[in-house]
Amino acid sequence: MVQIVIIGGSFAGIAAALKAKELYPKAEVSVIERQEKLAYMPNSFSWSLKNQMASDNQEFFNKKVVENSGIKLYLGQEVIDIDASHQRLLLDNGHCLVYDRLILAMGSRQMSDYIKGSHLPGVLSCKTYQESQEAKTLLAKAERIAVIGAGQIGIETSETCLKLGKKVYLFEAQESLDFNFFDADFLSPMLNDMKKAGLNLFCQERVHTIEQVDSGLRLVTDCQSVTVDLILLCAGFRPNSTLVKQLPILSPDQTIEVDTYLRTAIPEIFAVGDLIRVPLLSENNLVYRPLINTALKTGSLAAYNLWESTYSLPLSTQLVAHKQYGWYRAALGLTAEEAIFEQDIACIDYQASFSSHVTDQIFIRLVVAKETGRLLGAQALSKQNCLTLFQPLVLAMAEQKTDEDLVFQDFLFSLGQTELFYHLHQIMLKSLVERRS
Amino acid sequence: MVQIVIIGGSFAGIAAALKAKELYPKAEVSVIERQEKLAYMPNSFSWSLKNQMASDNQEFFNKKVVENSGIKLYLGQEVIDIDASHQRLLLDNGHCLVYDRLILAMGSRQMSDYIKGSHLPGVLSCKTYQESQEAKTLLAKAERIAVIGAGQIGIETSETCLKLGKKVYLFEAQESLDFNFFDADFLSPMLNDMKKAGLNLFCQERVHTIEQVDSGLRLVTDCQSVTVDLILLCAGFRPNSTLVKQLPILSPDQTIEVDTYLRTAIPEIFAVGDLIRVPLLSENNLVYRPLINTALKTGSLAAYNLWESTYSLPLSTQLVAHKQYGWYRAALGLTAEEAIFEQDIACIDYQASFSSHVTDQIFIRLVVAKETGRLLGAQALSKQNCLTLFQPLVLAMAEQKTDEDLVFQDFLFSLGQTELFYHLHQIMLKSLVERRS
Repeated sequence: MVQIVIIGGSFAGIAAALKAKELYPKAEVSVIERQEKLAYMPNSFSWSLKNQMASDNQEFFNKKVVENSGIKLYLGQEVIDIDASHQRLLLDNGHCLVYDRLILAMGSRQMSDYIKGSHLPGVLSCKTYQESQEAKTLLAKAERIAVIGAGQIGIETSETCLKLGKKVYLFEAQESLDFNFFDADFLSPMLNDMKKAGLNLFCQERVHTIEQVDSGLRLVTDCQSVTVDLILLCAGFRPNSTLVKQLPILSPDQTIEVDTYLRTAIPEIFAVGDLIRVPLLSENNLVYRPLINTALKTGSLAAYNLWESTYSLPLSTQLVAHKQYGWYRAALGLTAEEAIFEQDIACIDYQASFSSHVTDQIFIRLVVAKETGRLLGAQALSKQNCLTLFQPLVLAMAEQKTDEDLVFQDFLFSLGQTELFYHLHQIMLKSLVERRS
Repeated sequence: MVQIVIIGGSFAGIAAALKAKELYPKAEVSVIERQEKLAYMPNSFSWSLKNQMASDNQEFFNKKVVENSGIKLYLGQEVIDIDASHQRLLLDNGHCLVYDRLILAMGSRQMSDYIKGSHLPGVLSCKTYQESQEAKTLLAKAERIAVIGAGQIGIETSETCLKLGKKVYLFEAQESLDFNFFDADFLSPMLNDMKKAGLNLFCQERVHTIEQVDSGLRLVTDCQSVTVDLILLCAGFRPNSTLVKQLPILSPDQTIEVDTYLRTAIPEIFAVGDLIRVPLLSENNLVYRPLINTALKTGSLAAYNLWESTYSLPLSTQLVAHKQYGWYRAALGLTAEEAIFEQDIACIDYQASFSSHVTDQIFIRLVVAKETGRLLGAQALSKQNCLTLFQPLVLAMAEQKTDEDLVFQDFLFSLGQTELFYHLHQIMLKSLVERRS
C-alpha cells in the first residue's frame, strides 16, 4: 500500500491529510503529532479566558471526523529522525514508519533565545496546548503581567489580561503595532483606546534581559526596567525545523526551501504551512509570515502535487483582519511606509460614516502607484465590522488591477444590511481624483 | 456658466450631481426632484415600522451636505417637458431651465396596469415617501394584508406585516421566491421558516383582478380569491420614462437606450440608474434590474463621461444580498436553473458549520462550466451573516476565472472572528473534484 506520511497535525498537516486521503483513497495516510490535540488554536488561551469558546472545543479539525475519513493519527508521538535515503521515520517510542511521500508540517514555535533569562520559570509562551494551560494557572495568581511582542497575538493577549483586571505592560521592539501590516499613524485611534483601557505600551523597546528578583521577574529594555509576576512571550515565531537540520532542504533562516509546488530538494519530501516562506505579490523576496490561511491552503496544495506537479502556489497578498480593543482592522499588500521605498505612490485616506444607519466612522487607506493607479496595499479601521472589506482586493492585486479597473465594478449594496463595499467604490473614485492632483 | 442639469434626486441623480460638481467645479449643477426627499430609501417603509432606522433619517444623501457642495436643488418641482433642440426644460411652475448637459435619472415606478382594479383605494405601492406614509396609516387599521410580488421588497414587506401581528398573504406570479437570483430548491430552508412564521405564500399565482367587496378588497388569481383589508404592491418596477416619450431615445420596453458610456442618441443627454438596462456578464442581452448599486455607480460614471467618453460601464454580475426571516442570503451570476440552458454545467452544493465556533450551517451553491470550471454563478444561505461572501467573485467572474484559478488564492482567515472565506476555498476544492466525476 502506498504510504503518505505527514509530520505535524496542525492546520497545514490536517488540511494536507484530508485532501490526500480524498485524492488517493487507496493510499494509507498517517499523521504524526507530538501534542494530544489536532490543529490547536494558537489564541485559544485568550479565547478561553474571555469565554469566547467552550473549553472542550479548542481544535479546529475534529479528531473523530479526521479518523472517520480513514486517516491514521499518531497523537502524542514524535518523530526523532528522518532517514531520507531509506524513506523511513524513527519515532520516539522506537517504532519505524516508511513513506512513499512525506509532508513536513511541523509548524512554528516561539524562539526567545535573544532574550537573556527567557527560560526562567514564569516566562511562558502560549503556542501549544500545554503551554496555554500552564499560563492560565499562573495567570490566576499574577497581578502584574508583561506581554512581549505587539503583533496580533500580543495585542489580543494584552487585552485579555486587562479584562481580567491585571496591570499589563506590552513591549514591542519595532516602532509600532503590527507593523508588517499597518502604518503607525493609521492605527492611532485604536492606540488611544488601548491606552485608555489602561495598557502600558512601549514601542521601540526591545526586552533584552529577564532576571529573577525577590519581588518577581525583572524585565530590562534599553530604556527602563519593570518588575512583573508573569511574562507572556508573543513574538519570535520561527519554523519548527530542527528535525530536518541534517537534510539539505533547510535555509539559513531555518525555513524549509520549497519550489512553487511545495517540493523540497528531496523528491519525496514536501513542506507546508509555518515551515516555509511564501512569495509576496508586492516584493521580489520570499517572506516568513506564519498565517493560518497559508497553512490551510498550502496543506491542500501539497496533497495535489504529491505525484504530479498540478498546482503552484499563487503569490500572497498578506490579507489579515482582526478585532481587538473594540476596533476592527483589516489590511493587505504593502503599507505606505513600505511602498514609498519602492516607487512613486499615492496614499489615499478616506473617512466616512460606516453606513447610512450607523454613524461610527470607517477609516480606509489605499496605497496605489501614482502614475498608473495600480493597487499596492490597503488598510481599514472601524468600530464596526469591516473585516471582510479587502477580500475582493486579493484577486485585484494578483491581476495587477488599477483604481480605474475597479471603480465601476459591481459592489454589493444592501441598504441597512451591508453597505461596506460602497466605501471601496468611493475610495477608488477618490483615488482617481487625488493621485492626479 | 456651463449648465449641468439632472432630472431626479434619487441615488443615481445625486451620485451624478456630486461627482459632476467635483469634476467640473466651475459648472452650475442643478438637480430637479419631484419629491421633497433626496434618495428616499425604497424600503424605509419596512424599516421604520421595524424601528431599524430613525424616522427622520430616511434619505441616503443628506440634503445639507449636497447643498453645501454647491449643487442647486429644486425639490418638489417637476419637469413637464424637454425641448431637446433648444436644450431647455420646462418645469411645472412655469420656469425654464437651460442645460449644456442633461442627465436623466428619474428612476423607476411601480406599474400595476396588468392587474384589474389596482387603482382602487386600499391598493398601495411603497416606492415614494408619500406612498409609504399613506401605507403606514392604513396598515395600522388593517388586519388582513396581501403583498403582491415575492422579490426582495415583497419578502421584506411580508415579514414586517407579520411582525405587526397581521394575517399576511404573499403572491408571486413566478414559480419561486426572488427567482432572478436564487434557485427554488436552494431557498427551501428559508421557505420553511417563512411558513412557520405564519405567512400564506402562493407562488405561481398571478393576481389578475382586485375588486371592492363589502368586507374589503377581493383579490383574484387563477386558482383562488382572497379578501383582505389592504394590498401592498411590491412588483412591477418599471422605468419612470414617460417624460421622454417624445424623444428618440426610448426602447419599446420603456427603458432609455444608452451606450456603454451611458450616452443616449442625443449627444447632450445621458441616462442612468433605474431608467436603463444593464449588460449582464452572463448573457448577451441587456436586462432591466433596478438595483441601488447600479444607480450609484452609473450616476458617477455618467458624470465622468459628460464631455469625454472616459469610462465605460463594466458588465454586471447581479450581486445581491439580503437578510429576511432570520436568513442571510447572497447571490451573483446565473442560477443553476438559468445556466443549464446555456451550457454543460456542474452544480456544486456545499454545506458546513458556519465557523469553528458557530454550528449554524452555511449552504453554498456554485455553478461552474463543467469542462473548464469557469465560474457562472453562486448562491449562499445561512442564519449567520454571509452577506459579503460573494463580493470577491465579482472580479473573478469579470475576468472569466475558473475554480482552478481561485482555489489557492489568499482567503481571509481570522479564527473566531471571520472564517467566511474559508468556505470559498473549500467549495472551489470541492468543485475541482466533483465536476470531473
